[in-house]
Amino acid sequence: MIIREKDNWFRLLFAWHGSVLPQILPRLAVLLALSIAVLAARVELPAYKVPLSAAPFSLFGFTLAIFLGFYNNASYDRFWEARKQWGALLNTTRSLARQALTLSGQPLGAVREFVRLLIAFTYALKHQLRRTDAGPDLARLLPGPLAQATQAATFQPVWLLLEMSRWVQQGREAGQLDTTTQLAFDHNFNQLSDIVGACERLAGTPIPYTYSVLLHRTVYLYCFLLPFGLVDSTGWITPLIVAFVGYTFMALDAIMREIEEPFGLEDNDLALNTMSHTIEATLLEMVSEPAPPAPVHPHRYVFD
Amino acid sequence: MIIREKDNWFRLLFAWHGSVLPQILPRLAVLLALSIAVLAARVELPAYKVPLSAAPFSLFGFTLAIFLGFYNNASYDRFWEARKQWGALLNTTRSLARQALTLSGQPLGAVREFVRLLIAFTYALKHQLRRTDAGPDLARLLPGPLAQATQAATFQPVWLLLEMSRWVQQGREAGQLDTTTQLAFDHNFNQLSDIVGACERLAGTPIPYTYSVLLHRTVYLYCFLLPFGLVDSTGWITPLIVAFVGYTFMALDAIMREIEEPFGLEDNDLALNTMSHTIEATLLEMVSEPAPPAPVHPHRYVFD
Amino acid sequence: MIIREKDNWFRLLFAWHGSVLPQILPRLAVLLALSIAVLAARVELPAYKVPLSAAPFSLFGFTLAIFLGFYNNASYDRFWEARKQWGALLNTTRSLARQALTLSGQPLGAVREFVRLLIAFTYALKHQLRRTDAGPDLARLLPGPLAQATQAATFQPVWLLLEMSRWVQQGREAGQLDTTTQLAFDHNFNQLSDIVGACERLAGTPIPYTYSVLLHRTVYLYCFLLPFGLVDSTGWITPLIVAFVGYTFMALDAIMREIEEPFGLEDNDLALNTMSHTIEATLLEMVSEPAPPAPVHPHRYVFD
Amino acid sequence: MIIREKDNWFRLLFAWHGSVLPQILPRLAVLLALSIAVLAARVELPAYKVPLSAAPFSLFGFTLAIFLGFYNNASYDRFWEARKQWGALLNTTRSLARQALTLSGQPLGAVREFVRLLIAFTYALKHQLRRTDAGPDLARLLPGPLAQATQAATFQPVWLLLEMSRWVQQGREAGQLDTTTQLAFDHNFNQLSDIVGACERLAGTPIPYTYSVLLHRTVYLYCFLLPFGLVDSTGWITPLIVAFVGYTFMALDAIMREIEEPFGLEDNDLALNTMSHTIEATLLEMVSEPAPPAPVHPHRYVFD
Amino acid sequence: MIIREKDNWFRLLFAWHGSVLPQILPRLAVLLALSIAVLAARVELPAYKVPLSAAPFSLFGFTLAIFLGFYNNASYDRFWEARKQWGALLNTTRSLARQALTLSGQPLGAVREFVRLLIAFTYALKHQLRRTDAGPDLARLLPGPLAQATQAATFQPVWLLLEMSRWVQQGREAGQLDTTTQLAFDHNFNQLSDIVGACERLAGTPIPYTYSVLLHRTVYLYCFLLPFGLVDSTGWITPLIVAFVGYTFMALDAIMREIEEPFGLEDNDLALNTMSHTIEATLLEMVSEPAPPAPVHPHRYVFD
Repeated sequence: MIIREKDNWFRLLFAWHGSVLPQILPRLAVLLALSIAVLAARVELPAYKVPLSAAPFSLFGFTLAIFLGFYNNASYDRFWEARKQWGALLNTTRSLARQALTLSGQPLGAVREFVRLLIAFTYALKHQLRRTDAGPDLARLLPGPLAQATQAATFQPVWLLLEMSRWVQQGREAGQLDTTTQLAFDHNFNQLSDIVGACERLAGTPIPYTYSVLLHRTVYLYCFLLPFGLVDSTGWITPLIVAFVGYTFMALDAIMREIEEPFGLEDNDLALNTMSHTIEATLLEMVSEPAPPAPVHPHRYVFD
Repeated sequence: MIIREKDNWFRLLFAWHGSVLPQILPRLAVLLALSIAVLAARVELPAYKVPLSAAPFSLFGFTLAIFLGFYNNASYDRFWEARKQWGALLNTTRSLARQALTLSGQPLGAVREFVRLLIAFTYALKHQLRRTDAGPDLARLLPGPLAQATQAATFQPVWLLLEMSRWVQQGREAGQLDTTTQLAFDHNFNQLSDIVGACERLAGTPIPYTYSVLLHRTVYLYCFLLPFGLVDSTGWITPLIVAFVGYTFMALDAIMREIEEPFGLEDNDLALNTMSHTIEATLLEMVSEPAPPAPVHPHRYVFD
Repeated sequence: MIIREKDNWFRLLFAWHGSVLPQILPRLAVLLALSIAVLAARVELPAYKVPLSAAPFSLFGFTLAIFLGFYNNASYDRFWEARKQWGALLNTTRSLARQALTLSGQPLGAVREFVRLLIAFTYALKHQLRRTDAGPDLARLLPGPLAQATQAATFQPVWLLLEMSRWVQQGREAGQLDTTTQLAFDHNFNQLSDIVGACERLAGTPIPYTYSVLLHRTVYLYCFLLPFGLVDSTGWITPLIVAFVGYTFMALDAIMREIEEPFGLEDNDLALNTMSHTIEATLLEMVSEPAPPAPVHPHRYVFD
Repeated sequence: MIIREKDNWFRLLFAWHGSVLPQILPRLAVLLALSIAVLAARVELPAYKVPLSAAPFSLFGFTLAIFLGFYNNASYDRFWEARKQWGALLNTTRSLARQALTLSGQPLGAVREFVRLLIAFTYALKHQLRRTDAGPDLARLLPGPLAQATQAATFQPVWLLLEMSRWVQQGREAGQLDTTTQLAFDHNFNQLSDIVGACERLAGTPIPYTYSVLLHRTVYLYCFLLPFGLVDSTGWITPLIVAFVGYTFMALDAIMREIEEPFGLEDNDLALNTMSHTIEATLLEMVSEPAPPAPVHPHRYVFD
Repeated sequence: MIIREKDNWFRLLFAWHGSVLPQILPRLAVLLALSIAVLAARVELPAYKVPLSAAPFSLFGFTLAIFLGFYNNASYDRFWEARKQWGALLNTTRSLARQALTLSGQPLGAVREFVRLLIAFTYALKHQLRRTDAGPDLARLLPGPLAQATQAATFQPVWLLLEMSRWVQQGREAGQLDTTTQLAFDHNFNQLSDIVGACERLAGTPIPYTYSVLLHRTVYLYCFLLPFGLVDSTGWITPLIVAFVGYTFMALDAIMREIEEPFGLEDNDLALNTMSHTIEATLLEMVSEPAPPAPVHPHRYVFD
């Protein structure tokens, strides 16, 4: 995720980092070259012109507007829902820590163990979503045997959730809390289960692939036909206009592809590392333990 | 459901599998033939021309944009809501398995029985939505008499839900859990009941048929009038332009029809088989049983 | 509600039943006659022409697009919310039947009485929404005195809800269930209360009338001005084009008016009869009673 | 709120009551006069023409479409959310009355007192939202001292909510209900608290003022520039076209302003009086008391 | 937040305060100067003209419409969700105060302490969101040691929530309330935890930066190319038209930037000070304490 102060309106026009310009530059160069070729052909070989005008492009425009509008909204909804799920994760782990502190009847030491389960749950979810290895984080946070058992599971967060549930059950069996209180914990465990499932849904079910193909084709055919349609009316300025229109379409296409998979590692994806660290810090503060050092970010403005 | 790595932007332009191109090719060929005929008539028989220009098409464009935008959003919402319901099914069955393990006071053997009820519930729902026979799956998962009783029911998932509820009730009657705990299960049974109802709603109530007729007619009349409107201004390139516009409209029309019935068996429909298998695997892992082998998919990229 | 298999794309173009064509045919005929008159006047009396071109129509187009898009979405949202409420009704009555069977501690006979209250509640709601007489259904389902008392009430579903609540209370007073269980029922009664209220809201609060007037005027003025604007550029094909544009606008106008009152009796309205019957069948199956015969539908494809 | 049967499509074109035409007639007259002046100047003083054509108007059209679409959706969402809150008020007060009748263990007389608190709460909320004096309604419904104490409060509905909560607490202290039941009431009191807060939010936070200014300016500048842009191409019919376009824009602008403040007293605002009366009638029916006479409406079709 | 009576339609056209005109005036002046220069060059140096017409602008228009529509909706959604969270804060703190008064079994003095915790929580959240110092407000509301401990915490509202939870726990340990009642409080503490997390989410996760860059560039390039495209067809009126189109685009761009960060201090941001004061006043009224004086506003119409 890129977090920058909003620049002055003028300097924002020339921002390089955080724009997708670097990424689409090659395709844009191809488009520019084509436009120049079309322009040259128009001047040198006027007999071989392609009879296109701007009119048919406003017809494509309708479908393109529908495709882009739809795909963009669907992508952003995925991004924002993913962010909401991680926000809910923060809220629910805080609520569970508060319940452990004030409802469980357990001493602070046991509560700290429970809080470490919550933190391990957070990291396990992060690693599952990014398909990275949760091993080091589990080893850091959990007692050895539990870390190994968790590492061996396919659905690690679900396994840790079961462990938390057992922690509460032991308290009840020891008579430190009654059934009603146990169910207050259980209610929040249901929430965590919903969060895991929702994240798995977003990670595992992309926007139907066919939309992606269709949109991509429409955008690129539109862009590569455009110089033929404009060259008659806009003359020598055609390459600039085409490059600009092409830039907006291709940039939108590129950014949508980034945020539709919000758990990835691209610039505009969610800062799962930073958020995991925040959850760790706030939970540790609640049980009066020091927070670990903040993670190092790949770039001044970019949080991963 | 098609799950493919996002290709390079250039190769995506020529993807064949996962595009709806094969399906709409015949209609597109008809349209192309018409365009060529119109072009030929324009050249050979200039006296018999149809006085259409591009102008009226931008008037239809408005209604088309409204129809397509609406229908597309409504279809995708249905697809996504269906996916959310199956996500909720995963979350809630996991929560119930966790409750059975830590709240029910039952031995592991009895919990495994309960978990098999949950898995049978999942498969019964899948078969109801796809109108296939749940018999083999029920026989595989349930004891004989229960499998037969369930098979005889009209609303099989509801019947299995009742069975789960009875499993909990027996625990309470045996004094292994109290009323409060029973209601924690009951809360999640209400959720399952909501999921069944929501899936039945999506499967049983299509988008009003009249929209479908209206949209279809508008799309096809638009496409088949288009060559008459464009031939004057775009000359020999008309067939290509018409085919491209026709392709985007017909492809959108085709994909919307696929995803508006998300429980079907077409390429872009939900992978109910895969999801049922995931639920089975995660629930069995929770009770320390091995997962069954993953289902075989119809094609490398396609999950059903 | 019309439920038809999706036809072949070609035959769908000529579907008669389920399209709103029959309903708007008179207005369309008026529009066609006007177009022909305009065309004739253009040829016979060229001196008296109206100086309209296609240009101003794209200006109206913007407002029309906003009106139609908004009204259409608002109508469909009403339709879909109404369907969701009836889906929730199915889910909640099933949940209550399940609770009566497994939580109430009552014998099957008493549970069947309760289930009949649930069914009567469903029919009472249907009759209230369609402003028909609930008498026969109440008499069929309830004991005589209760049927009469309910029939005399203004808010019949609310009255029956109170009766269900009393059924549970009697169980508690008799010691068959405790307060906690009673509240599990009460939670679902709250849901039913929400469903009744939501249906009353949809039935009693239309989309603000002024929108309706405004949209209607804009659509018809647009259509009836269109021949004057097109006749210069499209010549003898004007009547066809005008009829086609008019058809799409008027058909959209007509279908929106049908689904914005989703509890009515028009072709695209909700199949309240069918849904009530489904609820009756599923609830009776749960208490092992035979389902009544399915209602007869007005037409092969139409469910009411 | 205006509730009229949907007229015949033809008579709807000439409906006067319920349209905003009367309200915007003066501005429309100004616009018409300007158009005629522009037309006259075009004919008499062709040398002084303003070089505007229809082309730039389609450029404004985009922003206008965005503004109008956004503002209209935001306004309608406010209207519909307000209606939902009052629907929820109906549902929740009914649920509370049902709970008082079947859970509280209180005699009917005491329940009737509680129901009058609910009704007084409804009227207090209505008066707060419309900034009218709740005194007469409070005096009619509550015992003298309570009516005075409530009248003295700044946040009257909150005060009455506290009073209801005390009514339940007294029942618990008297041993007529246990803690669990008290919390079932408390759950619905939380709902009422949410409803009060949501209504205060809608009444107190308008759509950001700047949007309003921006939209208004764009609409009126567009309308008043339009005759200059159209006069060249549409000649003597210009005033009619301008008046029609101006009518649709100004009417939309006017109706949006009405419904964005849904608790007001304009024609399209919510019928708070009628809804309060419905709540009173349904609650009194539940405790077998006669309903008060229905309020008199300002006009045959208009409910306030 | 700006709250003004809706003016007369005519005076609204010339409103200065509350419009973003002052803020964008410099850029608008640059644009106007450019337009005049283009116009002059067109007259003086006709040979050096840029071959642009209005046609390509309608092509950009589609992307611009998508960008602006999307960004505007996303911004307003953030604004409105932030307002909803603060509305929920009001509702939940009221509910907690009501619970403390009627469920906690504590004397009024202890309840007032609890209510001051709620008020301190509100101010701590406000200061966290605006990154200002909560010190003075904490010192004013809390006993010395608690104020200092809270001031030292990184996540102050979470710390105060823990404190409230402890207040309830002490009541239970002293036998003044039972576990069930404690959980009714706990339910609302979960809500407060959700509100804190949602506000942190809105404050910490902006709309992806790349959208911002893309939109900004498109808007400004569009505006600065516009005079070249219009000068041929609109002649001497070009600067006025360009300034007007530029005003609408830039103003929309500016207002979106204000409301997308709804917790800021700009004119259209949320009135957190006023809302905090309202919460304080309503909570104090519930425990019969006088409200503090209302905060002074920066301007007659502006609430901060």
